[in-house]
Amino acid sequence: MSDWFSDGAPIEAIAADDRAAQYGDGLFETIAIRDGAPRFWDAHVARLQTGAARLGLACPPADVLGRELDAAIDHSGVDGNFATAKLTLSAGRGPRGYQRAADTKAILRVGIFAARPLPAANYRDGVEVRLCTLRLAVQPQLAGLKTLNRLEQVLARAEWQDDRIFEGLMLDTGGQLICGTMSNVFIATESAYVTPAITRCGVSGIMRGRVIAWLQSAGIDCEVRDVGIDELFGADEIFLSNSQSGVIPVRRCGQHEWTVGAGTRQAQALAAANGVPECRS
Amino acid sequence: MSDWFSDGAPIEAIAADDRAAQYGDGLFETIAIRDGAPRFWDAHVARLQTGAARLGLACPPADVLGRELDAAIDHSGVDGNFATAKLTLSAGRGPRGYQRAADTKAILRVGIFAARPLPAANYRDGVEVRLCTLRLAVQPQLAGLKTLNRLEQVLARAEWQDDRIFEGLMLDTGGQLICGTMSNVFIATESAYVTPAITRCGVSGIMRGRVIAWLQSAGIDCEVRDVGIDELFGADEIFLSNSQSGVIPVRRCGQHEWTVGAGTRQAQALAAANGVPECRS
Repeated sequence: MSDWFSDGAPIEAIAADDRAAQYGDGLFETIAIRDGAPRFWDAHVARLQTGAARLGLACPPADVLGRELDAAIDHSGVDGNFATAKLTLSAGRGPRGYQRAADTKAILRVGIFAARPLPAANYRDGVEVRLCTLRLAVQPQLAGLKTLNRLEQVLARAEWQDDRIFEGLMLDTGGQLICGTMSNVFIATESAYVTPAITRCGVSGIMRGRVIAWLQSAGIDCEVRDVGIDELFGADEIFLSNSQSGVIPVRRCGQHEWTVGAGTRQAQALAAANGVPECRS
Repeated sequence: MSDWFSDGAPIEAIAADDRAAQYGDGLFETIAIRDGAPRFWDAHVARLQTGAARLGLACPPADVLGRELDAAIDHSGVDGNFATAKLTLSAGRGPRGYQRAADTKAILRVGIFAARPLPAANYRDGVEVRLCTLRLAVQPQLAGLKTLNRLEQVLARAEWQDDRIFEGLMLDTGGQLICGTMSNVFIATESAYVTPAITRCGVSGIMRGRVIAWLQSAGIDCEVRDVGIDELFGADEIFLSNSQSGVIPVRRCGQHEWTVGAGTRQAQALAAANGVPECRS
């Protein structure tokens, strides 16, 4: 049984001249599937469409994306109650050379995978993270997008093998905190939240956007701005956001420890009340 | 007939979970094939091996790379007297996630393509280039390497459609000249040469390395250092280097014009005398 689908049919392989494989020329979305349906679908579609416009790719309309996703879930044999979908939009097939031919046709592929819930202790007691050595390059033209150019994340993730480390935090080359390799980061007190601006580099996570929106709806301020390393280490509480797993407290980074306090619990409660029950501590 | 080969056999497709297609996790080399043999083979192998070491990939030894290349040329049906080979080293197949599993096995693919010589006028009169709007991000951990993360070059190349523009010059985010989208850049006078350092970003081109070495062997100084935009526009002569086409004079960039002078002619003559006859003006 294939994990991957395109045009509603299983695929085992992709063309050798696909520009995703030649240049990382494309985008992807990693979407939580819960009770057979994609979570925060509109936000994922919006980010994919924004990214496609910025890269100059033709993105299928939302209804086509939805039909492709549904067909893939139906045919996958994976339990759609708790799964992960990966939508990849490749620039398409093309000859050697950076220039996309005028007739290059973007290709959508959908992968469906079984999801594994995080241990309850992660949500309750928090996780340990590390500070990555690799720093994110500043590239405003790609900042925020989930492109297929992910070597920085691959190399950052290769910095550690210790399974007790859940995630690596990443600074940009200017030394500002940006995000984790697969998550965004929030600093919290009981009544105020801050998350790094994603204007120079980093991925603008879907769960990050939801957390900001939930806080604002609850009348709670969440600043989006630059965050230095001193502010990170001096913070009361730290948590991560991720589209698959929601809000995850951070208890430790090297010699620095944080409590899992009221700010983090409030963010978890908001997430749990808004479609992410797995992150209830 | 396939353009692509792996393990000595034609391939039409690659696995959907290949990390080259998922994350651009890999490297490539574009090699000129002349008279049935790869030009500057040792330099291409050395760059691929250096890149593999820096990305943590296992690179096949030189003799295996050579056998795979020869088999691909033999089976391709392409005229090996004037062709282009593309060697791709993918990190290999793997499940979703940035972390490479311990048993991930790098995959070598070889593409063989007919090459087209540049018009003689390009070598004789020089080419027109433009200055790209997109600036290269500063990422020392990837600088110099020809990785499969090439979205910056794709977006820079998409900035123009005018076929009269041969190449786009790229600055880094600090405003220093780095390279072209598919070439390196040299500044020349009759007796002195300068080419930008490739330590923060950019690809360390094979032809660039050859030109520097030929100049040095001839007792001519070639400085490798930062080059600002004012120095570029104030230079006597400018030329490009590219592994497929050698040394190409630049005559114009927007309102700036350069002569094709003795410095460029000397570099062309050195290239022509050292295995790149096509760039004789």
